[in-house]
Amino acid sequence: MANFLALAATVAIRYAAIRRQSQLKPNEPEPQILDFVTQQHKLFIAIATSHAFSLTATWLWDLYSKVNVDLAAGNTNDLPELHAIACCLKAVTSSDAAGLVERCRMSCGGHGYMLSSNLPQMYGMVTAACTYEGENTVMMLQTARQHFILQDFMTRGHFIRAALNFQTFGCFEAAKRKQGKPLSFTMAYLSDRSGPQKWDSSVDGIIMSFQRVAAGKLSSAVTSMKKYIKSGLSTEDAWNKASVQLVAASEAHCRSFILSTYHSEIRRKAASLSAPLKAVLHQLVELYAIYWTLERLGDLLLFTSITESDVSALRHAYEDLLEKIRPNAVGLVDAFDYRDEILNSTLGAYDGRVYERLMGEALKSPLNAESVNQSFYKYLKPLMQGKL
Amino acid sequence: MANFLALAATVAIRYAAIRRQSQLKPNEPEPQILDFVTQQHKLFIAIATSHAFSLTATWLWDLYSKVNVDLAAGNTNDLPELHAIACCLKAVTSSDAAGLVERCRMSCGGHGYMLSSNLPQMYGMVTAACTYEGENTVMMLQTARQHFILQDFMTRGHFIRAALNFQTFGCFEAAKRKQGKPLSFTMAYLSDRSGPQKWDSSVDGIIMSFQRVAAGKLSSAVTSMKKYIKSGLSTEDAWNKASVQLVAASEAHCRSFILSTYHSEIRRKAASLSAPLKAVLHQLVELYAIYWTLERLGDLLLFTSITESDVSALRHAYEDLLEKIRPNAVGLVDAFDYRDEILNSTLGAYDGRVYERLMGEALKSPLNAESVNQSFYKYLKPLMQGKL
Repeated sequence: MANFLALAATVAIRYAAIRRQSQLKPNEPEPQILDFVTQQHKLFIAIATSHAFSLTATWLWDLYSKVNVDLAAGNTNDLPELHAIACCLKAVTSSDAAGLVERCRMSCGGHGYMLSSNLPQMYGMVTAACTYEGENTVMMLQTARQHFILQDFMTRGHFIRAALNFQTFGCFEAAKRKQGKPLSFTMAYLSDRSGPQKWDSSVDGIIMSFQRVAAGKLSSAVTSMKKYIKSGLSTEDAWNKASVQLVAASEAHCRSFILSTYHSEIRRKAASLSAPLKAVLHQLVELYAIYWTLERLGDLLLFTSITESDVSALRHAYEDLLEKIRPNAVGLVDAFDYRDEILNSTLGAYDGRVYERLMGEALKSPLNAESVNQSFYKYLKPLMQGKL
Repeated sequence: MANFLALAATVAIRYAAIRRQSQLKPNEPEPQILDFVTQQHKLFIAIATSHAFSLTATWLWDLYSKVNVDLAAGNTNDLPELHAIACCLKAVTSSDAAGLVERCRMSCGGHGYMLSSNLPQMYGMVTAACTYEGENTVMMLQTARQHFILQDFMTRGHFIRAALNFQTFGCFEAAKRKQGKPLSFTMAYLSDRSGPQKWDSSVDGIIMSFQRVAAGKLSSAVTSMKKYIKSGLSTEDAWNKASVQLVAASEAHCRSFILSTYHSEIRRKAASLSAPLKAVLHQLVELYAIYWTLERLGDLLLFTSITESDVSALRHAYEDLLEKIRPNAVGLVDAFDYRDEILNSTLGAYDGRVYERLMGEALKSPLNAESVNQSFYKYLKPLMQGKL
């Protein structure tokens, strides 16, 4: 998903640097469409998301390798955690990538709809991933279920009843601690029982807030289930009836995880990078954090102390970030370093010769062999002259 | 867009009534997948949205006819309004329809990805509409711009400066009233200056709240522009920098308009309908209203007095509505009354014989002419036996 996003972002951003349209100011030439802030809003998040997914994938691969070594030694401790986080990551990354690849395509207007842009084919490949190897909704419910169990001390089959005894992960954690075991690491934040805190717009503050959202949504979903059971539903029917909320809780968990992994991995890598590069990479992390804050505002307003003036400040910070990233946008996609043969796109080649390539493609059509097709002289012209 | 949504919903809901998978309860047979609440969440909104769009389209057509008659008499009063509402309706309906048709496709799992389901082709047709005849972002900005002018008393070219003199539509209205003219009818709500009111979860209450959101978002966007101008940007650059917010304000305006038109048109038609039919159609309106309340929670929490307990009550109301609509779901798509030849889908025919049609399609492939293809005996078997 990270790779497809990088491909689509490369094509769309290079095209947006070549294509000129409309006027921003009277009597000035048409600007590169990349100068429209709405265009930047569509595209820069695709670069950041590709980085976020790529770093999270590496993290997951490392966990997978570790669990494999453990398994060989008969240790299954981290297996449920690997299962839970892999399930929701599969669903969220494929769904976000599909949305963003399609957004890249749409940002190229009618040219993006042409097969020769290669964007429709990319979308076909990415959206398929929402369905194969575990349909996304099923994957999200797997994570929700796993959250409720932690198989090491509960037997399968009792998980729903068990979950219902622990309205929030806080209580759940208390139960686990009683057994002397720490809560698993991707869910450790769920045991944070500190009260509401002042809103903090730093990336670390936003990560903490997303963790509060994830814990809050899980708690709401379990409260709903309890209510349904009290009203006479079986545990299974209550699970089903609350499943839209359970999916949303898994998604919130996953988003907080991707965001915190993205931030910590960039911070770790930044130690060995030049100051200017570090600055740009951190701008992308900030963009990602603020983008999702604004996308998930309802959750944050429900579960954190964010206020209207914080929201307004974040919108301005977002608009400033787009402006800061703009001069590096083409450099950032060049850095993905895809060869033209791999991009396979009339719109996205390194040399920017979009119109020459579009013309080249058009000339391949037999209909374009003559400048005016013979069908005009044979049929249309006589018809228009009333001589047919 | 209404028609494509009806087609896709027909295919997906009929398939979900035939397809059985997983278990809801131990030792029970696999349920129809339409019994999963996550599936109902994906699909029922598509039925409601098709109704909403279809009724709004009829309303728009009537306005268009009226404006045409007016134009012939030299009266251009309603032309700016027609332009503004048509622009945002084009963008919102094509974007929502594309999202929902794709959601219908995904709800059919791998079978939905098959061309023979006809869902991929429907998506191709619908997503194209986001680009053609006015790219959606451009359309949304047209509406935003029109909101700022009302050409009848401001000259083009001064609209941004003029807009900046009227921070909210309330002030704008005051300026218009001074000239003795009422604010145009699709925007009349913007002149409502009453203070914050107690949250009301009825459809009428939700409509009023969406209107407050639209007015609030417009006001926020203009506040941002003013701030940017104060910091030294030209009006054009300030417009560009706030354009993501301006698009969001247009979208909010459009959503409040679709919702109120849907509700008032159903109420008008309901007079001549049977009580049971009236009840079902009203359930769909309620579903549509609550669905969008939950989707746009951030806006409502910012601009209305909705509380956490209202939100929780709305989630339960939504879950109850899905349950109420479930028995009528197949009837509702049958009522769209598409012939099998038009649906052209292995998954969605009226008789529900999905698997027979899938098998029929598979047999059309030359690769399936023999039960085991000759390539197995020629190449694979010798390879597997190490005899190649």
